[in-house]
Amino acid sequence: MTQKDTPASRPTVRLIPKAEARAIRHGFPWVYANELVMDRRTRGLAPGTIATLEDANRTAMGVVAVNPASKIICRMLDQDPDAQIDQTWFEARIARALAHRDRLYPDPFYRLIHAESDGLPGVVIDRFGDVAVVQPNAAWADVLIGMLEAALVAVTGVATVVVNGNGRARTLEGLQERMDVSVGVRPDAPLAVPMNGAIYMADVMGGQKTGLFFDQRPNHAFAASLAKNARVLDVFSHVGGFGLACLANGAASVLAVDGSAPALELAQAGAAQMGVTDRFSVRKGDAFDSLTALADAGAQFDLVVCDPPAFAPSRQSLDAGLRAYERVARLAAPLVADGGYLALCSCSHAADLSKFRNASSRGIGRAGRRGQIIHTGYAGPDHPQLPHLAETGYLKAIFYRL
Amino acid sequence: MTQKDTPASRPTVRLIPKAEARAIRHGFPWVYANELVMDRRTRGLAPGTIATLEDANRTAMGVVAVNPASKIICRMLDQDPDAQIDQTWFEARIARALAHRDRLYPDPFYRLIHAESDGLPGVVIDRFGDVAVVQPNAAWADVLIGMLEAALVAVTGVATVVVNGNGRARTLEGLQERMDVSVGVRPDAPLAVPMNGAIYMADVMGGQKTGLFFDQRPNHAFAASLAKNARVLDVFSHVGGFGLACLANGAASVLAVDGSAPALELAQAGAAQMGVTDRFSVRKGDAFDSLTALADAGAQFDLVVCDPPAFAPSRQSLDAGLRAYERVARLAAPLVADGGYLALCSCSHAADLSKFRNASSRGIGRAGRRGQIIHTGYAGPDHPQLPHLAETGYLKAIFYRL
Repeated sequence: MTQKDTPASRPTVRLIPKAEARAIRHGFPWVYANELVMDRRTRGLAPGTIATLEDANRTAMGVVAVNPASKIICRMLDQDPDAQIDQTWFEARIARALAHRDRLYPDPFYRLIHAESDGLPGVVIDRFGDVAVVQPNAAWADVLIGMLEAALVAVTGVATVVVNGNGRARTLEGLQERMDVSVGVRPDAPLAVPMNGAIYMADVMGGQKTGLFFDQRPNHAFAASLAKNARVLDVFSHVGGFGLACLANGAASVLAVDGSAPALELAQAGAAQMGVTDRFSVRKGDAFDSLTALADAGAQFDLVVCDPPAFAPSRQSLDAGLRAYERVARLAAPLVADGGYLALCSCSHAADLSKFRNASSRGIGRAGRRGQIIHTGYAGPDHPQLPHLAETGYLKAIFYRL
Repeated sequence: MTQKDTPASRPTVRLIPKAEARAIRHGFPWVYANELVMDRRTRGLAPGTIATLEDANRTAMGVVAVNPASKIICRMLDQDPDAQIDQTWFEARIARALAHRDRLYPDPFYRLIHAESDGLPGVVIDRFGDVAVVQPNAAWADVLIGMLEAALVAVTGVATVVVNGNGRARTLEGLQERMDVSVGVRPDAPLAVPMNGAIYMADVMGGQKTGLFFDQRPNHAFAASLAKNARVLDVFSHVGGFGLACLANGAASVLAVDGSAPALELAQAGAAQMGVTDRFSVRKGDAFDSLTALADAGAQFDLVVCDPPAFAPSRQSLDAGLRAYERVARLAAPLVADGGYLALCSCSHAADLSKFRNASSRGIGRAGRRGQIIHTGYAGPDHPQLPHLAETGYLKAIFYRL
């Protein structure tokens, strides 16, 4: 399936009359399986086939990638039906995304491509200097991965391209897991990532457990702005995102709590690179147990940050997820000194800001504390959103003063 | 009414059985007029009277300020019924608020007291170095203004206290307009305010038209982060909030548009202090007309910011307000160069984020443009919110890349 794409050689797929053609014309990037005429030919298209999308009146609406195995059966690649999906097309999309990141960040460490919002549906690319990590989370990107990699190297000059195909998103697309280095040599050590004045160590071959999330960058920065001379507790610390940023801004001490020993080792390696190990300590263990144990010991902090994994990744898990967020708030609040700060994060799609805020405020109340909300932050500007999907912004960070 | 307040000497007011006693116990700061037993004695209380609030079972709930002339008939001052509302009490509230601002800002220029959220209901205090501007927007603060001023001077050491009683909020409380200097000498020139590397000139005696709003500080900073070498258009510029921050961060040029000549003069004075007049120009005129004229002239900018006055200050004005926000977006979008940025702000209570975002995105679409949302910002952390009132966060700034 790497033959040359041309408008003339493509198959055609067609919306049913009831489909939301107007939303798609206005930029909604997806066609759901129940919106497409499902004749035998369409059902038989190989996952990742490039096709022309027509409305019910047979007017061409654009170039789409089709995956009959996915609920999102078409992803819009280009609203110009005459566009040709070749390396030049990829290069233009990547160059446009790069111009934005170049403007935002002094160093080339960021999310370079944030899928639909950057015009490459289902494709996520994180950049760590001269190493790029590609997540091809849609079938079409798997099919055209060679072209994508060539364009990526041509535009950015990265020396190494890692393909990380381990996400949940790939399962929904019916794609296999994969993890390999397709360009350059395999990074043989964790990469040093400068961000907010801190240095993070990211093991990009180790998957999400020991990689790095760029999305919290502005929330790390806000936490750091509160951290001068402060005693900081960083719960669900991963490789030290909040804690090391606070140390870079003069925190008196940081205690990082996480269940993953490899993540904590990377956090310690980052602290060592920064020369701040004397102010940094770690505690391996369950977050809930650790919060309880610290409270029992009478520990107090000027800033407590809790950045748990997604407790409510889906609608079905929403109620249980909100109870878990409330519990985090209830167990963390007693550890905050009077006049100190509590930062609570959620990366759950299903829990919107209002629900998450209510659960958090309730938890704080149940702990017998009161708080003002001083800041609400989201994912950083290298994680743009389509306005049509803006309600689903997944990452929320609420900062309370207690 | 400046006799000493003691728990024993206070009158008592009582909730009706149906009132939301639970919400008040959990921190909701207001009692509405229809929630209080309105006997002749309560109706006869002087506006601003300090009283003990009881629930329907005559259990004391706290100390409140009563204003029978206001829809918000009680404002909670202290949930401890035994608290004494004296200068020491004011000092403790102000000291707590000050500790937060001291942590956040290197220079003493900020909102020091943000009303209910900082424990002084209806009271707003902005600090400009050694000058404080107090807005006593509730009757009780008018009554106790002397005590408040004394506490303010004692805690912060400011030399001058200006009382600005010109807000809309005072009308709702049945209070007269006033504007005077109650401590120290009248500032005889605009004050220089350092913020985000820029210098703003604030005429604190000139009222809101030529004063300064601290709430946009983080949004100014975000705009500035996009502005290096950029051509910037700052519409509804006031004294240059966005434009001067962009110049401080290396903007190639800034054009400020506003309808107020005094505001533009202050913007120019700020630019002069910064030594950037060669990159700064102003245009006095109606914003809508100016946007149209600039488009007709084929002008293009890398960053366009529109920070209009509240188009939807109340629920009745919501529809008309949203149409006005859509129009701003529609007229501004054509001025943004391809790949450039458009920042749209709303300070309307009635237009929530979702409604404002939809109106803005629709306007951009009507201009034939597409955008990703790269950032959503709110008022800065010197404008804290009570969780119970968090839905009503008035200030929103949405940054699009087109």
